[in-house]
Amino acid sequence: MSTIDATDNLTMHTDDYEINMMATYFEKNMQNRHAVFEVYFRDMPFGNGYAVFAGLEHVVDYINNIKFTDSDVDYLREHGDYSEKFLEYLRNFKFKGTIRSAQEGDLVFNKEPIMQVEGTIAECQLVETAILNIVNYQTLIATKAARIRSVAGKDPLMEFGSRRAQEVSAALWGTRACYIGGFDITSNVLAGKEFNIPISGTHAHSLVESFGNDYDAFKAYAETHRNCVFLVDTFDTLKSGVPNAIKVAKEMGDKINFNGVRIDSGDMAYISKRVREMLDKAGFPDAKIYASNDLDEYTISSLKMQHAKIDVWGVGTKVITAFDQPALGAVYKLVSVEDKNGKMVDTIKLSNNAEKVSTPGKKQVWRITEKKDGKSEGDYVTLADEDPRKEDSLYMFHPQYTYINKTIHDFNAEPLLKDIYRDGKLVYEMPSLDKIKKHANKVREMLWPEYKRMLNPEAYPVDLSQEAWDNKMKLIKEIRNGSEKRLQ
Amino acid sequence: MSTIDATDNLTMHTDDYEINMMATYFEKNMQNRHAVFEVYFRDMPFGNGYAVFAGLEHVVDYINNIKFTDSDVDYLREHGDYSEKFLEYLRNFKFKGTIRSAQEGDLVFNKEPIMQVEGTIAECQLVETAILNIVNYQTLIATKAARIRSVAGKDPLMEFGSRRAQEVSAALWGTRACYIGGFDITSNVLAGKEFNIPISGTHAHSLVESFGNDYDAFKAYAETHRNCVFLVDTFDTLKSGVPNAIKVAKEMGDKINFNGVRIDSGDMAYISKRVREMLDKAGFPDAKIYASNDLDEYTISSLKMQHAKIDVWGVGTKVITAFDQPALGAVYKLVSVEDKNGKMVDTIKLSNNAEKVSTPGKKQVWRITEKKDGKSEGDYVTLADEDPRKEDSLYMFHPQYTYINKTIHDFNAEPLLKDIYRDGKLVYEMPSLDKIKKHANKVREMLWPEYKRMLNPEAYPVDLSQEAWDNKMKLIKEIRNGSEKRLQ
Repeated sequence: MSTIDATDNLTMHTDDYEINMMATYFEKNMQNRHAVFEVYFRDMPFGNGYAVFAGLEHVVDYINNIKFTDSDVDYLREHGDYSEKFLEYLRNFKFKGTIRSAQEGDLVFNKEPIMQVEGTIAECQLVETAILNIVNYQTLIATKAARIRSVAGKDPLMEFGSRRAQEVSAALWGTRACYIGGFDITSNVLAGKEFNIPISGTHAHSLVESFGNDYDAFKAYAETHRNCVFLVDTFDTLKSGVPNAIKVAKEMGDKINFNGVRIDSGDMAYISKRVREMLDKAGFPDAKIYASNDLDEYTISSLKMQHAKIDVWGVGTKVITAFDQPALGAVYKLVSVEDKNGKMVDTIKLSNNAEKVSTPGKKQVWRITEKKDGKSEGDYVTLADEDPRKEDSLYMFHPQYTYINKTIHDFNAEPLLKDIYRDGKLVYEMPSLDKIKKHANKVREMLWPEYKRMLNPEAYPVDLSQEAWDNKMKLIKEIRNGSEKRLQ
Repeated sequence: MSTIDATDNLTMHTDDYEINMMATYFEKNMQNRHAVFEVYFRDMPFGNGYAVFAGLEHVVDYINNIKFTDSDVDYLREHGDYSEKFLEYLRNFKFKGTIRSAQEGDLVFNKEPIMQVEGTIAECQLVETAILNIVNYQTLIATKAARIRSVAGKDPLMEFGSRRAQEVSAALWGTRACYIGGFDITSNVLAGKEFNIPISGTHAHSLVESFGNDYDAFKAYAETHRNCVFLVDTFDTLKSGVPNAIKVAKEMGDKINFNGVRIDSGDMAYISKRVREMLDKAGFPDAKIYASNDLDEYTISSLKMQHAKIDVWGVGTKVITAFDQPALGAVYKLVSVEDKNGKMVDTIKLSNNAEKVSTPGKKQVWRITEKKDGKSEGDYVTLADEDPRKEDSLYMFHPQYTYINKTIHDFNAEPLLKDIYRDGKLVYEMPSLDKIKKHANKVREMLWPEYKRMLNPEAYPVDLSQEAWDNKMKLIKEIRNGSEKRLQ
């Protein structure tokens, strides 16, 4: 089955240049050289103060099923210039690498590694495309959902953007990412079934149109369902929809749970207040008002400012496509590679734009919190063999503006990148979705509010250790001095 | 296998309310009432003058495999309030409806039906979500690709946005939509294999970094591949990348096809001109310059204005996510439904916004062209039983501003909606992707240039026949007069 089935073989879901590089490494007998790649993004999506990591479950499904089939190999023989020996290598290819990653629901920040792939350079190269494809989208959507959650307070949030999602797997994995980011319910039945997300839905305008009027449609629905939310704006919300919903609710009495009414058009602030009055006056103070219609964090925020009487928010297009910024831009960069003498050498990608210069070396990210209140102090990016837990104090400084710095005492340091695969073997116990959601809520609590503002949040510190910083400066100098021919 | 496999069962990929409405119809013994739904969108995406229809192949894969499995039924029993009789109905459910649709590659316009689903109201309702999910995305991307093609002239266009696509099926079906819209090549190997799209790719910065310098990396690549495009901006495009590419090309001589170099950063206009000079001076006037880096129709247009010497354009994020408008808002509306006496009754969705009032009745779209030059005169939307081919002249008028009108003689009228399924049976011969691409090119030729401008195109006429217009006015009047209780 499709798209979300854990047995999907996506081995060929890769860019052609990955296979071509693998071929060059293979023919030059370099395919087993050890390498470390890291995934990171340069800018915070939506100008948000944090991002919510998601995508690991699909990445694991993908990695578990890597295998070139005979028909894959036949295709590559016909469409490339590969030797039979290389094709035979692909036929026997198994992913034996090590993957470290943030966990789903973790907060992650720009310019720090959120995933790390270590292994032979060939296997690391192969998995780049699919990993980025999955992590970029799901992290983007979980983050967008978290922004919407941040303005919705404790109100229920429903995702129903399937019809506007960018094809099938976005609809399915996207609504899962929404759930991680803070949504409560999905309209998508398949996502509900496969991921165990609560589902909900009542009826569309077409039900009312096929009955020809609100009353008959609501009555028929109420006679065939226990839980009822009537969509009241097919003809006229205040003159027909709500009065008929109330009429049916009164007639049905205890035979239904009259959960409320849904408004899908018009001036939501005004209409919701009138509808609230009508429901209250009719003796249904507990009936909720559901709203939908191109909602996002800005419109919800604005409706709340106007004291709209909306209890439940249905969000579609804007969250499932991350409408205002539909791509995260995470990249997958080589940070360290074995040279011909078997020595690991760190690598860097220079750029005229100082902000774009990558940070060389295999790294770990340590989330630093104060011991006394568990609140965030920042992330401390070290080389992989450093362990700040052994230190009494940490000197943290801004990696560009190094004169901005502080020294931390009495801190906890928690590594962000956890082992997922070790030498090809899955060593991470995949948590349930509800556990992931709880984790996401917990870690957000640890973040100071100034990083969580929807507009203009403070920049959360992502600092380099002195060692990581020195290593970067050394490499920049080496390359500027023209000694970039350090390898081979 | 995943996502693009024609055996995927996506039956449960539907909104919960579709199932709930099916249950109401079933319990009220209305599930077999005849209904007609139509898919249309209200606004042209990207302000473009036309859209390129895509998605039909995936829709057909989806429809062919509709079947509720036992585990689906078990899930619904547990998560709904359905009767066993209804669940049994689902277990035996088969799609037996009729689908008419634009063909992939067809030009389509706002406010006209681009797909029509006719059958029992229950089966029509079930398929809404998946059809919209697929058609919305693929039509959006084919249209975006066509915009980029319109500024790229005859230059080759490569799609390589997989890593930024919104999850896996967007990467795969999206690049197919790009191909339909006018792209030539994809980087995605799986899409190449499954859809028979030409693939291409050379190497990433990581290859250069792992060799430590441009020369060794290019040399190794050239010794292991026949077709070479060297990525020249890892360290310094003009000082290291291009000179080393030229050096390797000279050393290798006829042993490789030195297709050119790729630039992925920096001032493309300036750099490409310098690179062109270097290549020409070195005796490689046929070597091409490939450019990538967040390109879209605006940047390509601007680079061409600056006379950048770029021959091949690689486009990723901006096309595969339709970055500037990541959702097409096509909807699926009931236009006609059987009443309890077995009579078909047309339906309308009113709105305070005159533009949003739907057009009732089962319809056909006729593409009207002049006989003498085959050029477009506009689309003529009729009720399904009208046939303008029988008329000598057509009176076409704007459906809102009716005083804008014209009378056409010597015209051809071609129906847009073709039969795809008749009573559940696929009757349409699925064309090959290359045939679709050719068709897309051909129909674009028939459109006058004023509708094809990238900026501020003329609005292509989509007019209603007098009969369709009268029918709409009649229904509006009926409802305004409070006689909306026409059915049941």
